Amino acid sequence: MIKAGIIGATGYAGNELVRILMGHKEVEIKWYGSRSYIDKKYAEVYQNMFEIVDDVCMDDNMEELASQVDVIFTATPQGFLAGVLTEEILKKTKIVDLSADYRIKDVAVYEKWYGIEHKSPQFIEEAVYGLCEVNREKIKGARLIANPGCYTTCSILTAYPLVKEGLIDTSTLIVDAKSGTSGAGRGAKLPNLFCEVNENMKAYGVTSHRHTPEIEEQLGYAAGKEVMINFTPHLVPMNRGILATEYAALIRKEDGSLPTYEEIKAVYDKYYGKEKFVRVLEKDVQPETKWVEGSNYVDINFKIDERTGRIVMMGALDNLVKGAAGQAVQNMNLLFGFDEAEGLNLVPMFP
Amino acid sequence: MIKAGIIGATGYAGNELVRILMGHKEVEIKWYGSRSYIDKKYAEVYQNMFEIVDDVCMDDNMEELASQVDVIFTATPQGFLAGVLTEEILKKTKIVDLSADYRIKDVAVYEKWYGIEHKSPQFIEEAVYGLCEVNREKIKGARLIANPGCYTTCSILTAYPLVKEGLIDTSTLIVDAKSGTSGAGRGAKLPNLFCEVNENMKAYGVTSHRHTPEIEEQLGYAAGKEVMINFTPHLVPMNRGILATEYAALIRKEDGSLPTYEEIKAVYDKYYGKEKFVRVLEKDVQPETKWVEGSNYVDINFKIDERTGRIVMMGALDNLVKGAAGQAVQNMNLLFGFDEAEGLNLVPMFP
Amino acid sequence: MIKAGIIGATGYAGNELVRILMGHKEVEIKWYGSRSYIDKKYAEVYQNMFEIVDDVCMDDNMEELASQVDVIFTATPQGFLAGVLTEEILKKTKIVDLSADYRIKDVAVYEKWYGIEHKSPQFIEEAVYGLCEVNREKIKGARLIANPGCYTTCSILTAYPLVKEGLIDTSTLIVDAKSGTSGAGRGAKLPNLFCEVNENMKAYGVTSHRHTPEIEEQLGYAAGKEVMINFTPHLVPMNRGILATEYAALIRKEDGSLPTYEEIKAVYDKYYGKEKFVRVLEKDVQPETKWVEGSNYVDINFKIDERTGRIVMMGALDNLVKGAAGQAVQNMNLLFGFDEAEGLNLVPMFP
Amino acid sequence: MIKAGIIGATGYAGNELVRILMGHKEVEIKWYGSRSYIDKKYAEVYQNMFEIVDDVCMDDNMEELASQVDVIFTATPQGFLAGVLTEEILKKTKIVDLSADYRIKDVAVYEKWYGIEHKSPQFIEEAVYGLCEVNREKIKGARLIANPGCYTTCSILTAYPLVKEGLIDTSTLIVDAKSGTSGAGRGAKLPNLFCEVNENMKAYGVTSHRHTPEIEEQLGYAAGKEVMINFTPHLVPMNRGILATEYAALIRKEDGSLPTYEEIKAVYDKYYGKEKFVRVLEKDVQPETKWVEGSNYVDINFKIDERTGRIVMMGALDNLVKGAAGQAVQNMNLLFGFDEAEGLNLVPMFP
Repeated sequence: MIKAGIIGATGYAGNELVRILMGHKEVEIKWYGSRSYIDKKYAEVYQNMFEIVDDVCMDDNMEELASQVDVIFTATPQGFLAGVLTEEILKKTKIVDLSADYRIKDVAVYEKWYGIEHKSPQFIEEAVYGLCEVNREKIKGARLIANPGCYTTCSILTAYPLVKEGLIDTSTLIVDAKSGTSGAGRGAKLPNLFCEVNENMKAYGVTSHRHTPEIEEQLGYAAGKEVMINFTPHLVPMNRGILATEYAALIRKEDGSLPTYEEIKAVYDKYYGKEKFVRVLEKDVQPETKWVEGSNYVDINFKIDERTGRIVMMGALDNLVKGAAGQAVQNMNLLFGFDEAEGLNLVPMFP
Repeated sequence: MIKAGIIGATGYAGNELVRILMGHKEVEIKWYGSRSYIDKKYAEVYQNMFEIVDDVCMDDNMEELASQVDVIFTATPQGFLAGVLTEEILKKTKIVDLSADYRIKDVAVYEKWYGIEHKSPQFIEEAVYGLCEVNREKIKGARLIANPGCYTTCSILTAYPLVKEGLIDTSTLIVDAKSGTSGAGRGAKLPNLFCEVNENMKAYGVTSHRHTPEIEEQLGYAAGKEVMINFTPHLVPMNRGILATEYAALIRKEDGSLPTYEEIKAVYDKYYGKEKFVRVLEKDVQPETKWVEGSNYVDINFKIDERTGRIVMMGALDNLVKGAAGQAVQNMNLLFGFDEAEGLNLVPMFP
Repeated sequence: MIKAGIIGATGYAGNELVRILMGHKEVEIKWYGSRSYIDKKYAEVYQNMFEIVDDVCMDDNMEELASQVDVIFTATPQGFLAGVLTEEILKKTKIVDLSADYRIKDVAVYEKWYGIEHKSPQFIEEAVYGLCEVNREKIKGARLIANPGCYTTCSILTAYPLVKEGLIDTSTLIVDAKSGTSGAGRGAKLPNLFCEVNENMKAYGVTSHRHTPEIEEQLGYAAGKEVMINFTPHLVPMNRGILATEYAALIRKEDGSLPTYEEIKAVYDKYYGKEKFVRVLEKDVQPETKWVEGSNYVDINFKIDERTGRIVMMGALDNLVKGAAGQAVQNMNLLFGFDEAEGLNLVPMFP
Repeated sequence: MIKAGIIGATGYAGNELVRILMGHKEVEIKWYGSRSYIDKKYAEVYQNMFEIVDDVCMDDNMEELASQVDVIFTATPQGFLAGVLTEEILKKTKIVDLSADYRIKDVAVYEKWYGIEHKSPQFIEEAVYGLCEVNREKIKGARLIANPGCYTTCSILTAYPLVKEGLIDTSTLIVDAKSGTSGAGRGAKLPNLFCEVNENMKAYGVTSHRHTPEIEEQLGYAAGKEVMINFTPHLVPMNRGILATEYAALIRKEDGSLPTYEEIKAVYDKYYGKEKFVRVLEKDVQPETKWVEGSNYVDINFKIDERTGRIVMMGALDNLVKGAAGQAVQNMNLLFGFDEAEGLNLVPMFP
């Protein structure tokens, strides 16, 4: 039984961490950090936890927390962890950071896209990008995990095998992603009001969303060369779920023909056939966000367009689970040598 | 480890049974009965179960099934179980019936409200009404459980302590209930289309809904006299959740004063203080369906209106869990002597 | 062609006023008042008005505005108009106030339920309660109209004929109302975020909602005696629409029998048969909010419960139209002698 | 005053035609054709029309209808009009066909994508594709209008100016489109049930949707060469609205630079500056479906990605108005020489 602390426990991702960890056999939450609700009962902020969590919210004192727990989850705004992290802290505890602070290796890229100075670039190098299906072995020995973003987890995993095997022309890759509104967080902002989102759909952050360089960096490692994409997120009137629709030109074979369905399928199976949390669907079954809701699954499928020579890849996940808290727990399980699926045997809830 | 069969496994309640039983340590599902999808893979009907359930759908042969399993859940249309149930079957297996066939003791009342002949009235007497918090001891020794309806579970539990203790005038009781659309089932009917339900709200079954006599019968037992109420269900544009708002005149004390908040609260606590799945909320916190979504909880609270002398009672539950499959599993746990909460430690999902 | 000004033009009701007045032949909007957005283009606040409204937002200087326009609509927070209204202003212009400032004749009741001091009680007496179907003649000669609240319009009109004719026991009247989220306004508050409202339902303001005394006062006039009710509003995950479900004991006839459907229907027809904006539906057709969306209609129907001796009355309207801006325009039409339906021939939009 | 008949009046598009024509000064509806509801009152099928439309539903006898009205709208399944159209009918009346029967000039392409034989190919040549902003002059003299599809209207208008002016490489064009559920029609099918659509998102018809060849044909005329695209539609949990996000490589100038924002904007303004129903938004304001709901507008904007050399174009419309009934009325206005906007001065409804 290890002890965990959460900084940012009252955001949607923080609450989802609590939900998942309540069902985890090896972890006990010792610290519900929330700068906004210090001394308030956690269950008054999240009434779903009434009679389940009795604790009150604590502050975000990382140093104090580090001496009390084995792992800290930081579900905090960009810049928070970079501003407070020290070698002292990392010597005492492991950290799974759900923010973007240590996801991008090139500090200049981080500072450009996020528009803030990085306060502790000295830890970037050692941080491991916590995309479990790709970096499993590296994660096991890490002290600091950069938990991937919601859009990025979905976008990368959907295309990864084909990029890795060189089956698509990455210079043509376009990611058109759609997200439920919980991705926007629990801040009281006008654009996130029910009446503004319901019965509505829009693109946002067009050509400038911060998950773009993160996707590019990781797919770049897979491709063995620089990758530059178009990434367009959209806001959808639903609470949870991300659907990524991705387009790329297939690399033709020497005889000019396209790879077949079976060949592409075999590549997906090579990478994901034994992965519990990645489900490559059967032919012609397209991913739907509702089929993964509440679970740690990513559902993936693809369709070859013989007419245009492109492949359309689709991936769906729950942005708060595999896109945030679920993957964070999966990383924790790897860090501490638990069964990777412990606490994550969540059957998707339908409807 | 016991074996379970489900008849009607491809309805929404059936699918929810599967979801819950997947996380139950003592049960294995051996039979996914679905007349409409015989021989089709269950996971093709419910894609959320892909790579989780490998079985194909079976028919609804109760006799055959009875010889294979320890418990049968019938999530079937009204009249099905009454039409096939035999003493032979009940000798071999226990049954938790999610339909209304054995909920109402007076067969004439059943036949009037449901408009069908009851084909096996000889089993009505022995059937136990499976409202666990009220009939716990009787349930333990039963062979046949009549699992309560979704509206009725919510409506009864919300008022039960006050009716039982004679604190309200039951002749004034009015139940105004609101339900998510999954309560209407998975049948392809025009009124349940997305565009007909979304951005819409209506009452239906006004003065004639079939859950009325069920609520009246059970509250009648509590009151020790006949109870007659107004019950009005409404359709709400959400998937899950029932909210019941109930009104009744409080019985005044000898000095003409109303019972106080503390007195009423004490009565609720007397009945529910030790009940895991009934949460009586703190003062002035009103139940919200979202706070119980995906879980087996019923959240209850009340407000005294000094001006009118009435009490407003409110209860919220997930119609597919505590209102159907969750309560069915709770009943099964009681039947087989398992921990009553086994498989039901479901933390509500928010948002 | 008259000139109109709107104070509070950037709230949802204000925007709906603009939408309706754009289609009104006799009115030109000269002033889009919005304290929060002064000097900003109106169409940047409400992008639906792009290329339709070119004006910029103005301040809320009522004195200046009064000298420029024939009518002012105040869609402002409680207390605003009461704080600035003067005889000078009323001499120059007519006012339709969408706030509650002049709806309640007893200033003590207003101050108790609203928790603020009334700054200009001297105008309360002359203000006419703008429920057009009830007060049509008084409205025509008024200077100051207290436009009814959304819940109140629906609640009153649904019960009015039966109260007026003494057919129900008003001491038993209970109003259970459900509203879309636009009723909560456009303020950026956590409880109104998409993720908090979607897939959720709750009661609020139980026994204490401010529309209670307004309903009681108006029904009291109809009844010729004091009326005290229970009124419970609920928040529904939809943008627009109010549904009121109302319960009351029917007064039995001398022979102890209940009034018949035909008798009750005749009473509704007596009051509403010639009313364009009140539609009494055909037998057994229950009102749905979607069938009136975007229009000025109130749809009403009822059901007699022979078992309990009660009547269940149901009414549905669009809270932003008949519940706010539409009724305000209807009042303006009466004030200026226009066709009462001018600008309001809005066919409900479905789906 | 002309007379109009509608075949398929009880579909969603048919009902929207009725809503719009109710506000049209020059048209009277004489025939509400609906094979499924013959002799039933139209207002019983669409309760929003209660006390607005008194007529009963008629059959779909085109010959009889042609002798009674000046224009027929066919909002019917694919193949219906092609199966019954005759020269006799066209001599008596004008037809605006909302189905796909005459949209595609190459009958082989039609038969391949729609999988049915075309029964009256002899009328294909004379049919005019009713995209008003592109084919205005041709429409005026036509007898038979092929009213464009919902996705196609949005997809074509969003890219049209850039294709026409040769500013993008059409071989790279990808259209990722998202639609509200009313586009799926009013048929009672399981995938369109509320619980299947709500809180869900999916792609469908991937690489095979029937609107693909229609978009390709029309953009091909603009480009002066064959165009082949990827078109992916998605189902969104909302009633109305289509959002098309389109990607294409910009043609670089001789010096290798990309066109500037101002240059692209000027091209859009050249084509749409005087178009009432196409609104090219201000810089960095992205189209949202809610801002056009209920109206005949298409909102368009774009964003240049300097990094990838692509342009992201976005367009939003109401699929039942500009995507169906509104454009049909616009076509009718052109056919009969009415003001093109008559009946279509519909201010978008928000929220």
